[in-house]
Amino acid sequence: MVDYKAPLRDIDFVLKEFLNCEQHYAGLQGCEELGVDLMDAIISEGAKFAENVVNPLAEIADEQGCKLVDGKVTTPVGFKEAFKQWGEGGWQTLGIPAEHGGQGLPSSLGSVIGEMAGAPCWAFTMYGGLALAPVTCLINGGTAAQQQRFIPKILTGEWAGTMCLTEAHCGSDVGLLRTKAVKNDDGTYTLQGSKIFISGGEQDLTDNIIHAILARVEGAPAGTRGVSLFIAPKYWVNEDGSMGDFNNISCGAIEKKMGLKASATCVMNYDGARAVLLGEENRGLEIMFKLMNAARLGTAMQGLSMGEISYQGALSYARERLQMRSLSGPKNPDGPADPIMVHPDVRRMLLTQKAFVEGQRALIYWLAQQVDLTQFGSDIQKTEATQLLELLTPIAKAFCTETSQEVTYLGVQVYGGHGYISDNGMERIARDNRISTVYEGTTGIQSLDLIGRKVLGSGGAVLNNFTKIIHKYCKANEDNAALAEFIAPLAALNKEWGEVTLAVGEKAMANADEVGAASVDYLMYSGYITFAYLWAQMAEVAQQKLDAGSNDPLYSSKLKTARFYFQRLLPRTASHKAAMLAGADSLMDMSEAEFIC
Amino acid sequence: MVDYKAPLRDIDFVLKEFLNCEQHYAGLQGCEELGVDLMDAIISEGAKFAENVVNPLAEIADEQGCKLVDGKVTTPVGFKEAFKQWGEGGWQTLGIPAEHGGQGLPSSLGSVIGEMAGAPCWAFTMYGGLALAPVTCLINGGTAAQQQRFIPKILTGEWAGTMCLTEAHCGSDVGLLRTKAVKNDDGTYTLQGSKIFISGGEQDLTDNIIHAILARVEGAPAGTRGVSLFIAPKYWVNEDGSMGDFNNISCGAIEKKMGLKASATCVMNYDGARAVLLGEENRGLEIMFKLMNAARLGTAMQGLSMGEISYQGALSYARERLQMRSLSGPKNPDGPADPIMVHPDVRRMLLTQKAFVEGQRALIYWLAQQVDLTQFGSDIQKTEATQLLELLTPIAKAFCTETSQEVTYLGVQVYGGHGYISDNGMERIARDNRISTVYEGTTGIQSLDLIGRKVLGSGGAVLNNFTKIIHKYCKANEDNAALAEFIAPLAALNKEWGEVTLAVGEKAMANADEVGAASVDYLMYSGYITFAYLWAQMAEVAQQKLDAGSNDPLYSSKLKTARFYFQRLLPRTASHKAAMLAGADSLMDMSEAEFIC
Repeated sequence: MVDYKAPLRDIDFVLKEFLNCEQHYAGLQGCEELGVDLMDAIISEGAKFAENVVNPLAEIADEQGCKLVDGKVTTPVGFKEAFKQWGEGGWQTLGIPAEHGGQGLPSSLGSVIGEMAGAPCWAFTMYGGLALAPVTCLINGGTAAQQQRFIPKILTGEWAGTMCLTEAHCGSDVGLLRTKAVKNDDGTYTLQGSKIFISGGEQDLTDNIIHAILARVEGAPAGTRGVSLFIAPKYWVNEDGSMGDFNNISCGAIEKKMGLKASATCVMNYDGARAVLLGEENRGLEIMFKLMNAARLGTAMQGLSMGEISYQGALSYARERLQMRSLSGPKNPDGPADPIMVHPDVRRMLLTQKAFVEGQRALIYWLAQQVDLTQFGSDIQKTEATQLLELLTPIAKAFCTETSQEVTYLGVQVYGGHGYISDNGMERIARDNRISTVYEGTTGIQSLDLIGRKVLGSGGAVLNNFTKIIHKYCKANEDNAALAEFIAPLAALNKEWGEVTLAVGEKAMANADEVGAASVDYLMYSGYITFAYLWAQMAEVAQQKLDAGSNDPLYSSKLKTARFYFQRLLPRTASHKAAMLAGADSLMDMSEAEFIC
Repeated sequence: MVDYKAPLRDIDFVLKEFLNCEQHYAGLQGCEELGVDLMDAIISEGAKFAENVVNPLAEIADEQGCKLVDGKVTTPVGFKEAFKQWGEGGWQTLGIPAEHGGQGLPSSLGSVIGEMAGAPCWAFTMYGGLALAPVTCLINGGTAAQQQRFIPKILTGEWAGTMCLTEAHCGSDVGLLRTKAVKNDDGTYTLQGSKIFISGGEQDLTDNIIHAILARVEGAPAGTRGVSLFIAPKYWVNEDGSMGDFNNISCGAIEKKMGLKASATCVMNYDGARAVLLGEENRGLEIMFKLMNAARLGTAMQGLSMGEISYQGALSYARERLQMRSLSGPKNPDGPADPIMVHPDVRRMLLTQKAFVEGQRALIYWLAQQVDLTQFGSDIQKTEATQLLELLTPIAKAFCTETSQEVTYLGVQVYGGHGYISDNGMERIARDNRISTVYEGTTGIQSLDLIGRKVLGSGGAVLNNFTKIIHKYCKANEDNAALAEFIAPLAALNKEWGEVTLAVGEKAMANADEVGAASVDYLMYSGYITFAYLWAQMAEVAQQKLDAGSNDPLYSSKLKTARFYFQRLLPRTASHKAAMLAGADSLMDMSEAEFIC
């Protein structure tokens, strides 16, 4: 298995040198006390937790998985103790506002902890992550009494929580859901129905589980306009926060899955469960959707976490494994063969991993700062950050997870046959990662959100806002000869991005299917350009440090990785552009009979 | 799980209408009796075997896997009986020459059976496939007495066999192997050593296992010039073919793997095993390499088989799953939602699967005919076929398996969250398929073989031979207006292929690392053009049938799939071209310290 080491130097570079986090934190209203020293201390403790507590769980987590016996789910050995430490360490409360009992720290700091803790064993951190779903729903849509009743024990880790949305017949199409809620005389509701794919729906880590459940009140309108959001605990919670009787919420089955085997994916049955309504009837999706952006960035983070550990494994193997000689002459003449790192194609694989992983980190941390600004920024900062997040959240979710599939795929490939063997850990990482392009909205759904709802839905404004930022950046650096190799292609692609959007938009006026036909290629195209903008900026920072005389290999590494990205990965925009501009006809002309034959 | 149906209509199209197999078989010296009727009968029986005998094994194969207890391996329930039927049905003897007890049929026919039988459960067919490894070694390098001694009971399925090459410290770099052979007074050898990754090294399907083993005779030269090939059975085989005592060949462990769990991947220990030498000492690789081309096409076939069943699953799900409405208005107004097949992006995924799978079938079946020609053709046919196979075998192996990863990836994606659930079978297909880009030479190894050994190694001649064929084809069809959309881009890319090769070749003269730096992108680029040539020809055949008045949906389907391929997949050549022409510097400039930081 791969021994995870938190990538502290790169995290430091991104936070301090690329994103100027000191200045960022100082400008957040109400978070001024978070200086760099406190941040460093928290990150350093988080790294220890990831390396010392989570890392040892990884292998056993996959081997043992979860088991369901007589309605009770057992998690792998060590999970309960680790979750206790997670709660006691205060990790569950990092980004929760102080008035709700949290530490009131900006959520961007939580992202860093999330990356590190998730990398060795994402299945473990899912329990803590999902527990915050009802907390966020309560903060966004609950009364003070409801918040006081349910939140505190989730924050200590004594209780956990879930988000219950999917039913067997409805995943992406949430308006189809059928779980029924009937109002009782005392103002509570009684739930009847069944959900699937509920992560942590049942487990043995906590005393109680607080479920946030979407259901349809008797007589509600059809579709998404008739969906309400409820809180229903596994054991009833009295108004004073004390625990009552079993609430008829049970786990009917757990799924056997490709990966994330230690995260219990449950079929949940509500056989007359009592629930409290959050907000108003039929307005549940409004509250729930506030959760969605965070969930999407959290899933982008899974891509980064899995990619980082896959890169660490592949790099360490490539340095040790001796196989064949370098084409340009032996590099390890005293050994029986050269380390495979000498082979250009192995380097291509490692650099592809590195360029994607570090690009993902830059994007996700940057967007996490934008989330901080929506919470603690000035009014104008809030507006600007919201605009950026509208455009870049679907890109981050889909592009980071899709490119991460390539990263964890290459991790297996670098190991050769040994990558297929479970003991080495690389295939487990690829399996765990495979769901990231699916849950919290598939790549297809993100792409429709990007091009349909955001870009074309705003008449191009949401995109123009960002291409203007890139344009300004390119203009400001157009005379910088050292950066010309990055600025020139970025400026050209940035211009092309607008043109391509216009072309797709025009086609879409005549035929709505053109939007879907272009969508995923459009998103991938947009992702490559977004990463180019980030890599150009990181190269700029690195160049400045080198010009100032630094010989820290990180700076030359950044510069060379940026060069690799521009030379070998960015050209993929050409293929995506050609594919999306080919239009919908080749997709839609095919009859069902022609598919089958 | 996915219920496999042999794709008989497409197989028929490729064999009869695209590849004119009737004429092909009639021209093979010694195979003239194989008419279309006999071929149809064999394929029809093969389809039944795949659907009725292999298909029911798939789910249990993955669930149960293989177990090792006290040195004995047990395969999943049903394997033993199915293997017995495989042997009794004569499937093991299809392509074996009559003088060795086989049916003497062209091996291209065996490919068709291999595709079908392998699709539902590749792990099962591996036992039969590997059993033919020692048979082929014996035919290519054994004496008549050796052949008579070991081959007959393998052909009946009473015995099986293996190919033992890899050791813990040597996979791609076979020259490093250490297993030692010491010559005995009676002319046999005694083997001492250990091998890993031996498929079917131990199992409970057959009475004996005949191992073909690479080892180093005491005092042999270092590297590949000191490698000899031996036959060593699990139970000794006397000269009259009767079975003797246990031969000190034992299974030390079986690997826990990502997929193919029902194929026992064994650590094999030789503790003084008796062996007979094939051919001369130190010339083992020459015999073994004759096996490699067949093994590489066989692995390309795995890509096709896994892709076909993944497409079948995805298509059937897309037709049934109701989720959201078509962007261009409801298509299933009486239902709660439209089948997801109405969504352009779902169609993009299905068509990507279809275009790759059918392209793979066309390429592999065509190359299987070339293999026939190397065996049964005239002298000039042998030469031409050999030239084509030299170029196209590494392309087939790497390009079919790499594109097949995309196919089985999309199969999971079309299912959404349900694709991650084991019961639905789609994730198992992706896991089983994952090894195909690794074993029998990784994609990196195939790519080096293609560009280094074949193309540049022949001064371009091996490539020119093929681009001339494509050029001629384009010339012959340049006035065919109906095919212009295919012929024009094919001709342009065919020309570019030569230019790009020249550019890489020139760089390589100055720096050998340029070969490795370009290799995988060069192979993928070459694969896309090769598929374009095949799709243009299939479109031509389809167009002729449509012009002649046929309303078989297969023909319009072929034409539209070709169009999709040209419009949406072929443009990927642009990205691969840019990446490979970017050169080696961005790969080689990075120091080890810069990778680590």
